[in-house]
Amino acid sequence: MDRQEGDDHAAEEEQHVGEHAEEELDAFAVSTESLLAASDDVEVEEAHGGTQSSHRLLAYSDALLSIIATVMILPVAHTKMEADEELDDNLQLLLGTKVAVYLMTFLIVTVAWAAHILFQVIVRIDDTLALLNLACMMLITLLPYTFSLMANFPAHVLGILLFCGCVMVIGLIQSVIVLYAFGRPFLLQHQIQSCEDRSVYRHHILKVLLRVPVMCLLAAVCSFFCYQLSYVLLALVIFLPYISPAEEDPEQVMFYTFLPSEPLSKERVEAFSDGVYAIVATLLILDISEDNVPDPASVQQHFNGSLVAALRSYGSEYLAYLGSFATVGLLWFAHHSLFLQVSRATRAMGLLNTLSLAFVGGLPLAFRLTHELPLAALRDERRAVQASCVLVFGAGVFQLATWVAALQGGGRRTLRPAVRYGGPEHVFMLAKLALYPAVALAAFLLTCVLSRFSVTIFHLMEIATPLAFLLLRLMVRFASALLKHL
Amino acid sequence: MDRQEGDDHAAEEEQHVGEHAEEELDAFAVSTESLLAASDDVEVEEAHGGTQSSHRLLAYSDALLSIIATVMILPVAHTKMEADEELDDNLQLLLGTKVAVYLMTFLIVTVAWAAHILFQVIVRIDDTLALLNLACMMLITLLPYTFSLMANFPAHVLGILLFCGCVMVIGLIQSVIVLYAFGRPFLLQHQIQSCEDRSVYRHHILKVLLRVPVMCLLAAVCSFFCYQLSYVLLALVIFLPYISPAEEDPEQVMFYTFLPSEPLSKERVEAFSDGVYAIVATLLILDISEDNVPDPASVQQHFNGSLVAALRSYGSEYLAYLGSFATVGLLWFAHHSLFLQVSRATRAMGLLNTLSLAFVGGLPLAFRLTHELPLAALRDERRAVQASCVLVFGAGVFQLATWVAALQGGGRRTLRPAVRYGGPEHVFMLAKLALYPAVALAAFLLTCVLSRFSVTIFHLMEIATPLAFLLLRLMVRFASALLKHL
Repeated sequence: MDRQEGDDHAAEEEQHVGEHAEEELDAFAVSTESLLAASDDVEVEEAHGGTQSSHRLLAYSDALLSIIATVMILPVAHTKMEADEELDDNLQLLLGTKVAVYLMTFLIVTVAWAAHILFQVIVRIDDTLALLNLACMMLITLLPYTFSLMANFPAHVLGILLFCGCVMVIGLIQSVIVLYAFGRPFLLQHQIQSCEDRSVYRHHILKVLLRVPVMCLLAAVCSFFCYQLSYVLLALVIFLPYISPAEEDPEQVMFYTFLPSEPLSKERVEAFSDGVYAIVATLLILDISEDNVPDPASVQQHFNGSLVAALRSYGSEYLAYLGSFATVGLLWFAHHSLFLQVSRATRAMGLLNTLSLAFVGGLPLAFRLTHELPLAALRDERRAVQASCVLVFGAGVFQLATWVAALQGGGRRTLRPAVRYGGPEHVFMLAKLALYPAVALAAFLLTCVLSRFSVTIFHLMEIATPLAFLLLRLMVRFASALLKHL
Repeated sequence: MDRQEGDDHAAEEEQHVGEHAEEELDAFAVSTESLLAASDDVEVEEAHGGTQSSHRLLAYSDALLSIIATVMILPVAHTKMEADEELDDNLQLLLGTKVAVYLMTFLIVTVAWAAHILFQVIVRIDDTLALLNLACMMLITLLPYTFSLMANFPAHVLGILLFCGCVMVIGLIQSVIVLYAFGRPFLLQHQIQSCEDRSVYRHHILKVLLRVPVMCLLAAVCSFFCYQLSYVLLALVIFLPYISPAEEDPEQVMFYTFLPSEPLSKERVEAFSDGVYAIVATLLILDISEDNVPDPASVQQHFNGSLVAALRSYGSEYLAYLGSFATVGLLWFAHHSLFLQVSRATRAMGLLNTLSLAFVGGLPLAFRLTHELPLAALRDERRAVQASCVLVFGAGVFQLATWVAALQGGGRRTLRPAVRYGGPEHVFMLAKLALYPAVALAAFLLTCVLSRFSVTIFHLMEIATPLAFLLLRLMVRFASALLKHL
């Protein structure tokens, strides 16, 4: 079969070369994006019958993974809260489990995302690999469900077994993908393809991939006599991708990006983060569209048929929406500015970025807490606002920490010169990244003093920050111009 | 200020050149992806203080837009349906409005996405443009809300006015973005930048951008005396991007991709489609994770504390989930295979692809209908299954239509040779794309005859199709091998 495909390739390539001249004529009209995405040679290669670039497969998988990671905040945010219940009880009993499920899902899906690095080595796919990858994705979507089971029946062995079973099958499919691809070297990255001793790479990749399933096997066995130990083992799994296998010889496996020198692809970190920010922004509008559309009967009854009056009664919720969207948008903007200056992401940066994203994923909860709870008691209102401040603070402070981690060792390998210590944009980057943590901290402290106005303080903070942001920009420009003048 | 920035650029470029040698050493370890994403020159350019490549901004906007377009299916899918109500009444009264909101949102957000093409011309952004774009995105997220108002109060002028107001402000911000960028030519695409008569492009882009707001202004004015006419005008807006401005001179504006020759960027069509497929797959698991986790008290009460027995009672729902995920996954796979062979997307293909995606976005509803309604009456069950078949059929048949549209005129400009008429993969592509429409049609017809087993038929179809898919692959391989042998 391979040989026949090879013939097809040759025949097609000829056809392509014939067409090349014609395509050349239109090349001028091609947008810059296609210029970035594919040079002409890549395009010619791509059309080989049966195999195809894995680029879009990886992009789709990344989008899917980032959405799966984030969407479990919805059950948390939509927990029914009655106006007469105390938020304390809710927070501790009802929300506790759901928040745990969300956090665990987020972190474990990030692990799955990091393991999916294998499609950076396998740069061409055929139908079999595409279908195997879809099966893998399906199993990953089941992980949140097994977590919900674990959270609801923590002492029951079934939840742990199902989760470990899922992870082991995922590992198995990924191993099959690796073995299949190494059996057909034309699917592999060019450098590995031309390398003589491919089995070193195969061995290394399998070893990295199988660490997680092996840990889960251990956890599954443990669950029969001591389920607490299982949870400890599972918690370890989350931090596995950030633990460097020190014994590796970087010379031998220099093209596999699971290396200390470039453990994470910057593009994939960006794509995953974009997915999280995008879904969070969308979950906000979902709330508004579902809850704040009055139905005709109640407008007739309560507002004498005046739709304007009915909508005016939602005033504070629109304000909360605008504030929350601005927060998500500006956090994305800060992230964007930061990663623009990152030339290489280390593992520590990856971990801190993941923690920041986990807090960003919690923002729909902050929105819910601050626009639903003016109904609840005064004390609860303050608590709700403080919880929201913590979420914003966490999202911002871990972004800042990512940058600080990148600055380690002068940032020579990780950062572009502009934002390194002494660079022209250094102070501005610090200001950009410190803004949200500082503002959230200030709001938190203010609510302790002025608990009566805590919701107002929070909304004011959310809406004033974008303006502060612009002001900051102007101030830094002015200051640097002044310095230059002196 | 510009001049000062210019100085910064020069200073930074020097620093960069110095670093270049060092970076060269590590270049070997860089993954293929970064090879695709950015050549070294682009990277050097990117770090210019203050401005930055717009690539990630566009990717983020596309992700956000595809999720906004799709997420409005959630209110439809989560419409409460009592077991004793007739589905007919529900479908017509309750679902009707929500489906209309979903469809209109989907189509109008696609229009906004098509208009966002402006960041293909503006290839570099600064902070001002990034913040303007975020403001634009925020207004776009408000569109679903204004639609909900329109759907609930169709005769009320307020919904129409709010919607038109939103669209007009979006158009205004986009125009400001264009004017701002053309005032700073270093932000523009290289070809336009080096072109002498940039005002032709500016004029053309503004004309394309402002068509939609002008239509909305007309609709807003009309709403005061004849609101039905407003709706006709708004419906026209949806099809505007697909109406070719025939009077354009392609020579004059050859770099702006809003052209008959390449009206849509293939990469952006793929990114948008990926977003839709990813969010649909995730909405499915959200249902399972929220509804099918038994709570400890009821397990104790109904199943004598046996968690396994409790989970077994959900058996058919797991089956429905697996089937639905397989359907979404394989539809994505067919889409992926198709667009891999597309070299250039025309407007007709864009429209047909959008319609296919609108049906894909409806699949969470199909999932809900087929796993919730075994409770309901027999007649309703059949209707629910038939509605689901229509959704799958629509998603598949518009994919097929996209390909047929691409085949027009021999597909010389739109398709790679392999799948054109007479190409080696032609039959296989036809089989791939025709599979789902054929299967859905067969299931629909079967349920008319065997209405007792309609849910079983649907699940069987969903689970058997992936197997049929693999079988098909083997059959086509075998047949082509046989033909070659003869």
